[in-house]
Amino acid sequence: MTKMKTYEMGSASSLDSWQLVTREVPKPGPSQVLVRLRAASLNFRDVLIASRRYPISGNIDSIVPLSDGAGEVVEVGDAVTYFAVGDRVAGIFSQSWLGGGVVDDVMQSALGGGIDGVLSEYRVFDQTGLVRLPDHLSFEEGATLPCAAVTAWNALYGLKPLQPGQTVLALGTGGVSSFVIQLAHAAGARVIVTSSSDEKLGRAKAFGADDGINYRTYPEWSAEVKRLTDGRGVDHVVEIGGTGTLPHSIASIRTGGIISMVGLLAVSSEKINPMPLLTIGGIMRGVLVGSRELFEAMNRAIAYHKIHPIIDQVFPFEEAKQALAALATGQHVGKIVIRIAD
Amino acid sequence: MTKMKTYEMGSASSLDSWQLVTREVPKPGPSQVLVRLRAASLNFRDVLIASRRYPISGNIDSIVPLSDGAGEVVEVGDAVTYFAVGDRVAGIFSQSWLGGGVVDDVMQSALGGGIDGVLSEYRVFDQTGLVRLPDHLSFEEGATLPCAAVTAWNALYGLKPLQPGQTVLALGTGGVSSFVIQLAHAAGARVIVTSSSDEKLGRAKAFGADDGINYRTYPEWSAEVKRLTDGRGVDHVVEIGGTGTLPHSIASIRTGGIISMVGLLAVSSEKINPMPLLTIGGIMRGVLVGSRELFEAMNRAIAYHKIHPIIDQVFPFEEAKQALAALATGQHVGKIVIRIAD
Amino acid sequence: MTKMKTYEMGSASSLDSWQLVTREVPKPGPSQVLVRLRAASLNFRDVLIASRRYPISGNIDSIVPLSDGAGEVVEVGDAVTYFAVGDRVAGIFSQSWLGGGVVDDVMQSALGGGIDGVLSEYRVFDQTGLVRLPDHLSFEEGATLPCAAVTAWNALYGLKPLQPGQTVLALGTGGVSSFVIQLAHAAGARVIVTSSSDEKLGRAKAFGADDGINYRTYPEWSAEVKRLTDGRGVDHVVEIGGTGTLPHSIASIRTGGIISMVGLLAVSSEKINPMPLLTIGGIMRGVLVGSRELFEAMNRAIAYHKIHPIIDQVFPFEEAKQALAALATGQHVGKIVIRIAD
Amino acid sequence: MTKMKTYEMGSASSLDSWQLVTREVPKPGPSQVLVRLRAASLNFRDVLIASRRYPISGNIDSIVPLSDGAGEVVEVGDAVTYFAVGDRVAGIFSQSWLGGGVVDDVMQSALGGGIDGVLSEYRVFDQTGLVRLPDHLSFEEGATLPCAAVTAWNALYGLKPLQPGQTVLALGTGGVSSFVIQLAHAAGARVIVTSSSDEKLGRAKAFGADDGINYRTYPEWSAEVKRLTDGRGVDHVVEIGGTGTLPHSIASIRTGGIISMVGLLAVSSEKINPMPLLTIGGIMRGVLVGSRELFEAMNRAIAYHKIHPIIDQVFPFEEAKQALAALATGQHVGKIVIRIAD
Repeated sequence: MTKMKTYEMGSASSLDSWQLVTREVPKPGPSQVLVRLRAASLNFRDVLIASRRYPISGNIDSIVPLSDGAGEVVEVGDAVTYFAVGDRVAGIFSQSWLGGGVVDDVMQSALGGGIDGVLSEYRVFDQTGLVRLPDHLSFEEGATLPCAAVTAWNALYGLKPLQPGQTVLALGTGGVSSFVIQLAHAAGARVIVTSSSDEKLGRAKAFGADDGINYRTYPEWSAEVKRLTDGRGVDHVVEIGGTGTLPHSIASIRTGGIISMVGLLAVSSEKINPMPLLTIGGIMRGVLVGSRELFEAMNRAIAYHKIHPIIDQVFPFEEAKQALAALATGQHVGKIVIRIAD
Repeated sequence: MTKMKTYEMGSASSLDSWQLVTREVPKPGPSQVLVRLRAASLNFRDVLIASRRYPISGNIDSIVPLSDGAGEVVEVGDAVTYFAVGDRVAGIFSQSWLGGGVVDDVMQSALGGGIDGVLSEYRVFDQTGLVRLPDHLSFEEGATLPCAAVTAWNALYGLKPLQPGQTVLALGTGGVSSFVIQLAHAAGARVIVTSSSDEKLGRAKAFGADDGINYRTYPEWSAEVKRLTDGRGVDHVVEIGGTGTLPHSIASIRTGGIISMVGLLAVSSEKINPMPLLTIGGIMRGVLVGSRELFEAMNRAIAYHKIHPIIDQVFPFEEAKQALAALATGQHVGKIVIRIAD
Repeated sequence: MTKMKTYEMGSASSLDSWQLVTREVPKPGPSQVLVRLRAASLNFRDVLIASRRYPISGNIDSIVPLSDGAGEVVEVGDAVTYFAVGDRVAGIFSQSWLGGGVVDDVMQSALGGGIDGVLSEYRVFDQTGLVRLPDHLSFEEGATLPCAAVTAWNALYGLKPLQPGQTVLALGTGGVSSFVIQLAHAAGARVIVTSSSDEKLGRAKAFGADDGINYRTYPEWSAEVKRLTDGRGVDHVVEIGGTGTLPHSIASIRTGGIISMVGLLAVSSEKINPMPLLTIGGIMRGVLVGSRELFEAMNRAIAYHKIHPIIDQVFPFEEAKQALAALATGQHVGKIVIRIAD
Repeated sequence: MTKMKTYEMGSASSLDSWQLVTREVPKPGPSQVLVRLRAASLNFRDVLIASRRYPISGNIDSIVPLSDGAGEVVEVGDAVTYFAVGDRVAGIFSQSWLGGGVVDDVMQSALGGGIDGVLSEYRVFDQTGLVRLPDHLSFEEGATLPCAAVTAWNALYGLKPLQPGQTVLALGTGGVSSFVIQLAHAAGARVIVTSSSDEKLGRAKAFGADDGINYRTYPEWSAEVKRLTDGRGVDHVVEIGGTGTLPHSIASIRTGGIISMVGLLAVSSEKINPMPLLTIGGIMRGVLVGSRELFEAMNRAIAYHKIHPIIDQVFPFEEAKQALAALATGQHVGKIVIRIAD
């Protein structure tokens, strides 16, 4: 039997706990696919899981980390109809959410949390647990999509689809936000972005933002959002859950606007007064990544617009823990990636 | 010129401030309709407005109170195509929200708040500001619909339409909640209701609730909701904004469930932790009554099912202030009505 | 190895072609379930397939017939999370359409057409290819759901969800139509049904129709539909594709109404003038049964309302061909069922 | 009283029937606005109305022609809140369809058909019957929007909203089609266009089409559409009702795709076989222009993208009949406009 290298969570509640172990390369069942993983990417969720601050039940010490990976198909079961050997693919975040409304077991079937993830040289997936990569993307780029990009797409299209001419507010320039900027721009929407750094605002404008607000310059930044929208407010806010932003986000939307809460960034016990949301007829919605159906729709947009995900830094497989540590600092713009194999 | 009796808000910030005055009966313009009002109903909003705790800008001392009224058409302008003399009608809450998504001026154009209401013997409406009453309803019954019933309908149909076999949780047995119970029952949905009174729970079951939870018996009532739904949670909660209920409401919904916030009942500075909403992929939505289009769709359901609104008590026109005081006590089941004319 | 009895299509293009053969009982893979089938039901599609008038590519001679079956789980693979031995289940029509919008391979993955069906003592399914049966249903009743009932539900909820107080027109009293009547009635909608038989109209009223139109009495039955709806027309027509009905169906809808085309009943080269549909802003939509997600939502309605499917006749397994012949006559009300095992 | 020049339909059923007459400038009522019209544009509907081939009941001889006009507000009634003197506005096609689903009286309240249109120096509108023009548009450009552009927007956003990365097929390069091309392009969708002229295809590519198909070169053009979409078909077809195109349009869509029928171009008794639509699970939908709400959403897209409508030719007010004759020839690309006043 062939051997492969795989990371496991390890037993410590720390960012330094991952263990590189050896496992046997698994065999695909009748409707399954064996993928040789080439790259993975990280999300803040991975920091929370490693530090055991993420709501998962059960012991995860021997779970393989990370939800986001891309690779190539190297073997297929007899009943596989969607893929062939050589196809370039990415795994979907929640292996059981294939289409339609969010499923009850969305979290239990999520890669790198409820079940084994992708920080491994090989992994078997049900054929329904994969999507084809857009042709113009490298494996590193493809590996950034499953969690952050699909979350951004679900925020924009999962409830009340974004329309051209609407305005989207992205908070910050991290993983999800960089995709929000790129995807909303490709959709013909106006994009406003906040950041603490003029330099990051400049980079965000280069990949699609129309306007930037430095929240150090404008601590009451919702007032600036209102000014930029002639007092009307924005149609969508994609709220990544930073400390203290939600009241400003609520104050930033138009009558009937939407706030998508996509992140557990703060994981605070911070509380908000929901009344302002009611008085503006607003919608606040928790986004749990998204389905295979949303992923495929997004890929069509990414392929047509030849969008290249924003990658901050690429680490080798052996330095996976350094990648995690880098993510935890929050200094990045876009995504941090691990190259598993060339 | 003919004279009529009309209430005005009066200048005091109190439940005893309304003034009965005499005005001239107005004349309808080309596309307008003169309505002889026969009944009006009260909402908690009216208590808040009278006590100046409702978010309205500008002086409202001479505004006519109350949003909800029904009557008969007594004169129509030349360009009126929707109504004829003798038609039985009700006014729509927000005169500018006729269909589709909520409009920016929804509050400024709301009866008895931004503009003159219906506690008057006559009122002129644009023809688009009225709907026809279902035939089986009295004027008293018809007068209960514009705010509370349309709010209930919008909660159930305005974002993700209720389907038969889904479960709805109504909090309490007041105006909006009694309509939620009746309408959700007519729609083939299962209805769970909470109350502090077994007697009120019994009455709610008589008009459509399947299950009742006495929250004095079950202070942690979301656990009871989960038990009644085999651990899954409900599809919709219609949250009327009572003190401290929101965390329980969030704990009561299924993955991807909806909480409609319909009331300013608490008007508290109470704060909640939104994280549980995110982790369950839930939706929280402020409902600002609803459009003429929603009112008409609801009326078709009310007419087909011959639903009779639950009326707690009817006061004569001269005792309008007593009606307001009665509402403020919160002892009622269903609606409190004022008969304007026989 | 255990043996089982199974029907195959056989090579003749006729209603008498099915062959009873012996196969080995298959073994479930890791995420698969072995079902002992207890009952199956027939649809007009099965007549078309047997007579090779259905659009399927490739040789189907050794395909197992029928899409609709119910049974009990007798063995589960290691990775199965949805079901346990003893669970009562039904197969979903298209094994690849799990949720959301219709998938491209909906027909290729349909039971008893693109792939083996359920007219067999045992069958292995991916766990995603099954749903749990409502508790109050027998296996015979459960076996009627996968094609006809899900088609009816998709027609009513798949595009513009039916609301209470709306009006639905069902054509005839066959399999799909009987479910349309029962489901729309449970949803609080008004139901009008057409038939050539006053006796069948009477039976339809007994299980949910409000009004019946005998199209022999009213050959121009759309006029009668308009009369019954005060000239407005109905909100939904579920059009089963009988000869010559479509122009009447178009004439029966209100401005903006929907016609769901659910059947290949006529399979005619009959042509229609689409202009009347345009001038009324109507929608005509082909319904290809429906997803697992729709099936589960429907089951909640069926379970809550304790709906019992209308069964016309039950045939023993050995008389499966007689069942097919009975269906082809079109004399039935509701569904024709085959009992596979007690 | 001030006089103004106005066209009326005239009594002849011909393209040469319009009569230039003198009327008094009307006065606005309380919630009405007097507009000095500066430009109007033509649609094929106007040819049909002039030649009495359009389904309108009643005598229209003294009706003012044309639905599409733009101008400036010169007087407002006391109750007007949306507009002020000097505002640049356009009328909405159907004065009663303000938002949400299509209204029953959509045709009776349509300008230049059911009621007086805009080929006049002045016209009074209810304030709800107007929208504000995007700042970057001239009056000539603004006058092209009410029918053709809103129809295009409704086709793309009124039922299943267009998403970036989807593919839209526009038939021809006339008024509606040119807006479909521009708007779908701005929305980040891929656009395929058909024409009989390579020169027109070239122009269409200049304003947003990705691919052109000359249907003289490819009489079976749906095969070419399939080839350009890797066999999948397009998501949306906007079908303008040319002779014989509908079967090709049906053959061009993907599983579950939409055909919006926007035009009465053919007004033929041409019939089609609807079965291919059923077997692909497709949707065919009649589009009756659109609401004020859709118009405003579209204007936001037009304003953000600074889209300039494609104008083929501008005629002076005195040569209105020549403009109508020019439209009838079908040689134009984009819109034909009449300048009413400088």
